[in-house]
Amino acid sequence: MTIEKYPAKRHALRVNQRWCELAPEHFSSMAEAPVLLLASPRTVKWPFCDQTQPFRQNRNFYYLSGCDLPDSYLTYDTSCQTLVLYLPPVDADEVMWSGLPISVDEAKTRFDVDDVRYSNRLASDLALLYGKRTVFTVEQLTCSDHAQVLGELPNIVKAVAEADSHVLEALEESRVIKDEYELGLMRQAAAISDKAHLKVMSTMNIHTNETHIHAEFVYHSLRAGSKNQSYDPICCSGHSCSTLHYVKNDEDLAGRQLILIDAGAEWKNYASDVTRTYPINGEWTMEAREIYDLVLHMQTSCEKLVAPGASWEELHLLAHKILVKGFLELGIFKGGSEEEILESRVSSAFFPHGLGHMLGMDTHDSGGRANYSDPDPMFRYLRIRRKLEPGMVVTVEPGIYFSPFLINPCLRGDEDLGNGGKFIDTDVLDKYWDVGGIRIEDDVLVTETGHENFTKVPKEPDVLSAIIKKALATS
Amino acid sequence: MTIEKYPAKRHALRVNQRWCELAPEHFSSMAEAPVLLLASPRTVKWPFCDQTQPFRQNRNFYYLSGCDLPDSYLTYDTSCQTLVLYLPPVDADEVMWSGLPISVDEAKTRFDVDDVRYSNRLASDLALLYGKRTVFTVEQLTCSDHAQVLGELPNIVKAVAEADSHVLEALEESRVIKDEYELGLMRQAAAISDKAHLKVMSTMNIHTNETHIHAEFVYHSLRAGSKNQSYDPICCSGHSCSTLHYVKNDEDLAGRQLILIDAGAEWKNYASDVTRTYPINGEWTMEAREIYDLVLHMQTSCEKLVAPGASWEELHLLAHKILVKGFLELGIFKGGSEEEILESRVSSAFFPHGLGHMLGMDTHDSGGRANYSDPDPMFRYLRIRRKLEPGMVVTVEPGIYFSPFLINPCLRGDEDLGNGGKFIDTDVLDKYWDVGGIRIEDDVLVTETGHENFTKVPKEPDVLSAIIKKALATS
Repeated sequence: MTIEKYPAKRHALRVNQRWCELAPEHFSSMAEAPVLLLASPRTVKWPFCDQTQPFRQNRNFYYLSGCDLPDSYLTYDTSCQTLVLYLPPVDADEVMWSGLPISVDEAKTRFDVDDVRYSNRLASDLALLYGKRTVFTVEQLTCSDHAQVLGELPNIVKAVAEADSHVLEALEESRVIKDEYELGLMRQAAAISDKAHLKVMSTMNIHTNETHIHAEFVYHSLRAGSKNQSYDPICCSGHSCSTLHYVKNDEDLAGRQLILIDAGAEWKNYASDVTRTYPINGEWTMEAREIYDLVLHMQTSCEKLVAPGASWEELHLLAHKILVKGFLELGIFKGGSEEEILESRVSSAFFPHGLGHMLGMDTHDSGGRANYSDPDPMFRYLRIRRKLEPGMVVTVEPGIYFSPFLINPCLRGDEDLGNGGKFIDTDVLDKYWDVGGIRIEDDVLVTETGHENFTKVPKEPDVLSAIIKKALATS
Repeated sequence: MTIEKYPAKRHALRVNQRWCELAPEHFSSMAEAPVLLLASPRTVKWPFCDQTQPFRQNRNFYYLSGCDLPDSYLTYDTSCQTLVLYLPPVDADEVMWSGLPISVDEAKTRFDVDDVRYSNRLASDLALLYGKRTVFTVEQLTCSDHAQVLGELPNIVKAVAEADSHVLEALEESRVIKDEYELGLMRQAAAISDKAHLKVMSTMNIHTNETHIHAEFVYHSLRAGSKNQSYDPICCSGHSCSTLHYVKNDEDLAGRQLILIDAGAEWKNYASDVTRTYPINGEWTMEAREIYDLVLHMQTSCEKLVAPGASWEELHLLAHKILVKGFLELGIFKGGSEEEILESRVSSAFFPHGLGHMLGMDTHDSGGRANYSDPDPMFRYLRIRRKLEPGMVVTVEPGIYFSPFLINPCLRGDEDLGNGGKFIDTDVLDKYWDVGGIRIEDDVLVTETGHENFTKVPKEPDVLSAIIKKALATS
């Protein structure tokens, strides 16, 4: 069996083509065709300490190399579509501690590049091969470690030092549409997360603190070979569920209704990002179930419409419409029509974030075209502002939160949610504070004909309840 | 019940006193008494990504504040022994995502400092309060984020920019002797590691890959509230056990004799560091048991001698002497007296690292006074080169490894281990390659009268064997 290599050269061609479209002036003559230089992060120690800081591969570097090593460089010559990977020279003193690093020959076999060399050749290669061409980079190469490798080549260093927005856009835009190889990695990340989420639910009998939830998820990810989480897991309970990026994960579960776990395993630098919310004792309170059903309705309604050409703004708006209708039925909103209430933006006090985001190597992957200075609070935090295309992977993750930091300013009228506070029935609202927050999040691929949901872990409220009750019965 | 605060002010007094001894010229007049400025790490995002890089508190900052927050500053005025903590101002937009940060009043209650302020006051405080004094720091404060907080104060910035070796020495040397509060934290870290190591042994029935070992250890640490490992766990098996800083942790255990797990939980920024080695199937091979007994003899013999006034070099030498005697008895060494063989330094090809190191907030804690350019290979990597004193915590961690990268150069005579290769009987040696490597490591406090071993997890070979066999019987 041959394992297909990570398709670095295909990725480079995509980037090359898009770069050429964005900045044709650089590509007018073969003799002056630009060279792209990328660098993986340097190995850096904590100050006054001999331990190295955690390493996370540069996503653009990985996209064009499939190589997960630090201290490396990559050149891409657009005149001949040639990728050359430069590895750090072998440090003999280090072999005793860390073993033999990959050899140049092994690297040639493992990575989809045209050549592999040691980085002590990089300076002379830049001078000899590309001396009369412009070398573009998007990296910060100003530190002395880089300077040592790149050498003192005034004509190159100048170009190297200036980030070029066209080449960055070409890189980030190419990454938006995932190829089959990438989708294979993302399906694997999603499958590991599915299993880990299911394990957390199935072991609720042994969890009495948020940190136990966290530990359980990380355990099953790591056992499955996922060394890194895509992001810091959010494991919250009760009122903490209304803190969107809660990462303390250290409070007791006793006396609380729900837990919310937002966690995703990473697989070979590709992310998954999944959220589930469920009752700690397996029983939904009436209020929790009402809000859960509403969020699930928002989530499945939007997911159904994920398809090429769909406008993400419209899906996001649909989620808000469902929220407003549901809150009118529950009596949390009153005194206005659906349209008036939607227009007031008061629903943003309960669903403050966007419907979802691009997913890829980064959890919030490139190419979303968010507009964080949008004056409209309903769209300010929406991380995708474009139509969907086949090959995009997005999260669909509506939520409803009962956060005093969001709702009280709205009630006081001192927020930019118009006069929306008047539509809130605070007597009814008071029954819901203990629900805290509910979010449901799946990872969804846009296909040619519609979509494929990568996330298979249950979200039906009765199924969740049954899994947890079964776990509790075994204790 | 009142929980005693982390004793920042006592620590500051220690540093002050030592600084004064090291650099009395700065302390000649009260009006010119120096001010110390420390900074916690800035919150930094990964390039082209909205996720923040992992945070690890600056150890010197924590030592003088007990505060585990990023983006903060600390001043210590030596004229009046006053500690002032500067927290980042509240970012209203961030509250929605992350909840309310600690308030100034809460911080005054929680931390053992004289005052707490927001860092937007720091620049003016530096100018007004300390304008005519010299402000010392050991931090790199050159980035623009820091400059924004510190302001444009030429007379201060100049002093701030230059690291001062006396104050750094005062900080690092003060940290060498742990007080009772710190020892309480270290005992807790050690207790979590004990339990996690025991859990790994006790679940050998479900582990078929090194990553399972890793996952199991992290799981029990995290469940016990240890958010961070003191260092990347080393979980190796078979020949990989001879790679001292192996962190791949991804190979199958099948067909291998031993696993070696070197892992320690962190508790409130204080480290533990523990290694155990044991047979995967619960049965020691004859060769593995011979080497294990020898390493255990080295370990317990050295641990017994840990006491005030003991020379660490002598303990390290004792471990080598026991190794040489043992290898002569096993027939791995031959053709020379114990003295001749010891003198040849050939034992360093099997036990290349030092007997242990200082342990504290850093795993390799400050104050060891190592000499990595020592021409003597037996002492080059010894991380403690001083006599032991009460309050020091050290690791005692001899090991024996069968690494071709270390032994083959010695056999060829191309290493600085003299003519030691001639003392190796390669026919006998060949029986031991599959042992891979064995290390046993405990965390030991130097007391007034001797020592206290923090590490309680079993190391007796028959006990280890029984635990693993019991686990395997349950599968």
